[in-house]
Amino acid sequence: MLCFKTHKGKLVATERREPHLKPGWALIRVRLAGICNTDREILRGYHDFHGVPGHEFVGEVAAVPRGSQRKEKFWLGKRVAGEINISCKSLGFKPVCAFCQRGLNTHCARRKVLGIIGHDGAFAEYLALPLANLHLIPAEVTDEQAVFVEPLAAACQILDQIDIRHFPSPAVLGDGKLAQLIAMVLQAAGCQVTLFGKHAEKLKLSKQRGIKAKTVVGDERDLKKVKQNYRLVVEATGSPAGLRLALEMTEPRGTLVLKSTFHGAAAVETWPLVVKEITVVGSRCGPFGKAIALLRSRRVDPRSFISRIFPLREAPEAIAYAQKPGVMKVLLKPDGEI
Amino acid sequence: MLCFKTHKGKLVATERREPHLKPGWALIRVRLAGICNTDREILRGYHDFHGVPGHEFVGEVAAVPRGSQRKEKFWLGKRVAGEINISCKSLGFKPVCAFCQRGLNTHCARRKVLGIIGHDGAFAEYLALPLANLHLIPAEVTDEQAVFVEPLAAACQILDQIDIRHFPSPAVLGDGKLAQLIAMVLQAAGCQVTLFGKHAEKLKLSKQRGIKAKTVVGDERDLKKVKQNYRLVVEATGSPAGLRLALEMTEPRGTLVLKSTFHGAAAVETWPLVVKEITVVGSRCGPFGKAIALLRSRRVDPRSFISRIFPLREAPEAIAYAQKPGVMKVLLKPDGEI
Repeated sequence: MLCFKTHKGKLVATERREPHLKPGWALIRVRLAGICNTDREILRGYHDFHGVPGHEFVGEVAAVPRGSQRKEKFWLGKRVAGEINISCKSLGFKPVCAFCQRGLNTHCARRKVLGIIGHDGAFAEYLALPLANLHLIPAEVTDEQAVFVEPLAAACQILDQIDIRHFPSPAVLGDGKLAQLIAMVLQAAGCQVTLFGKHAEKLKLSKQRGIKAKTVVGDERDLKKVKQNYRLVVEATGSPAGLRLALEMTEPRGTLVLKSTFHGAAAVETWPLVVKEITVVGSRCGPFGKAIALLRSRRVDPRSFISRIFPLREAPEAIAYAQKPGVMKVLLKPDGEI
Repeated sequence: MLCFKTHKGKLVATERREPHLKPGWALIRVRLAGICNTDREILRGYHDFHGVPGHEFVGEVAAVPRGSQRKEKFWLGKRVAGEINISCKSLGFKPVCAFCQRGLNTHCARRKVLGIIGHDGAFAEYLALPLANLHLIPAEVTDEQAVFVEPLAAACQILDQIDIRHFPSPAVLGDGKLAQLIAMVLQAAGCQVTLFGKHAEKLKLSKQRGIKAKTVVGDERDLKKVKQNYRLVVEATGSPAGLRLALEMTEPRGTLVLKSTFHGAAAVETWPLVVKEITVVGSRCGPFGKAIALLRSRRVDPRSFISRIFPLREAPEAIAYAQKPGVMKVLLKPDGEI
């Protein structure tokens, strides 16, 4: 099969055999894969990952191991999205770690993460995942929608961490894919969201959906323009400047949800956090079921975020394209018929 | 009266009249005042405060304004501690701000803060505070204990912000006065506390109380020595290195309470906060009633933290002494009989 491996900061085409399956695992033929900022970070050497990146995908189950039970064979041919954290039980560890024991599988101490930590990902014709990680994609949800399940679930995670009913008018910082998915999820949850971003052309996508969007420049000049008393601020800019602005915009006793996983130390004044008694909530992977339900109900439709679909064999060109100004989601399609 | 004002980074003795009282306010004769790290920060120019510092004190009510009602005159001669945030109502603002409306007086948008923001403090023979800020000191509590009510209340604030029953074995980082008060408060709340500090001689004070104490060096070498799976970590070192260590020590989905208000930007990697989905809780001023109850019940007795008591007229020498290695709490006594 064709896949793309990281090599010295670039993606390199490689031919190899399909992954070997352990009991309880599935071979998945990738139908569409999404390019995420994390993939760019991986190419820059973060996470020290050497393998096939890609953790956003929709695919179909092509095989389960010989000797699988009927309930396992059920998955054959099904269209699926897959959770990216592979935890103790699927990796064959007994006893499972303290986090798996508490049901916090996404925080498994020994976890591998699809396309990020120790397990090859979706920039390939095929990938392997435990059946326990799979979620059925309903017929009403297209491939172009389903490929957003992973980042949409990350946006939904906020609703699992805070009681959104206390925050009718949140601010979301950032105008990238994740920030705008978060704005859509909060809007679907009944909030009057204000989205702050640097790129007017990107903000248009949210404006078309009735989300209030404001342009900022990304430095202290913004403080004169923005309200500084949001009870809930979600930081998803991916930059230290965004974090500083978010701290200023959060009102005393307010909540700041951190979604950005930029690497490198950010120089941050922490005393406003203490003086204002702000609660900061780190937020990562989320509930796939909720994301699929939002897509199915059409309350969230992220298809307008798709800037372009490349055939898998053009993955390096696709990564380069994804970094151009104004470009939102770039997808890879292994079968090449676009 | 004698008082000490900030002037070019130093304390300068000044003679002036006692403060004028508005209705609802009290003149308080200071019996003891405590020197806090915040006072040192103020002398270095932070908060841009120019006046009389000092916000930890025990005193007695010397006067209320002419024409005061009986319930106000009740306070005359009483021994009191005083909350340091002076909010809308006491300042005469109508309508009160949105925070005062919600009962969040410590976050009043227009607040003055005793010895810190816009209101002269306790490095003086007398100070003025609203009667609404005063708390009676019971006869069983000595002056040397009562002068700790303000920082002890700040330690107690943690118990108001998180449900401590979920955290039986917290870590406290820091070996200064606030860190050790926090360790004592958490111990009194039933926790098995481990205290991490750089100074063995300071940690002794907590060890004598049966608190487990460990010495660290304050850089990344510590990471090999400390457990990295504390469900609750309280950061009270007053240094960026402490914050970095605290982030490492907090387990996934754990809680990190920030108490340090050091100024200047700390270079912090924020992605572990997101990846581990840590909740960070900024924590400042706390409930005086709880602090007084802890002192009265003898479950917390901070008197062994007192390194030395200086007469008020030697305030500059006292501040210098407070910065010497190994020194904990330094007090000022206006009447000079020590």
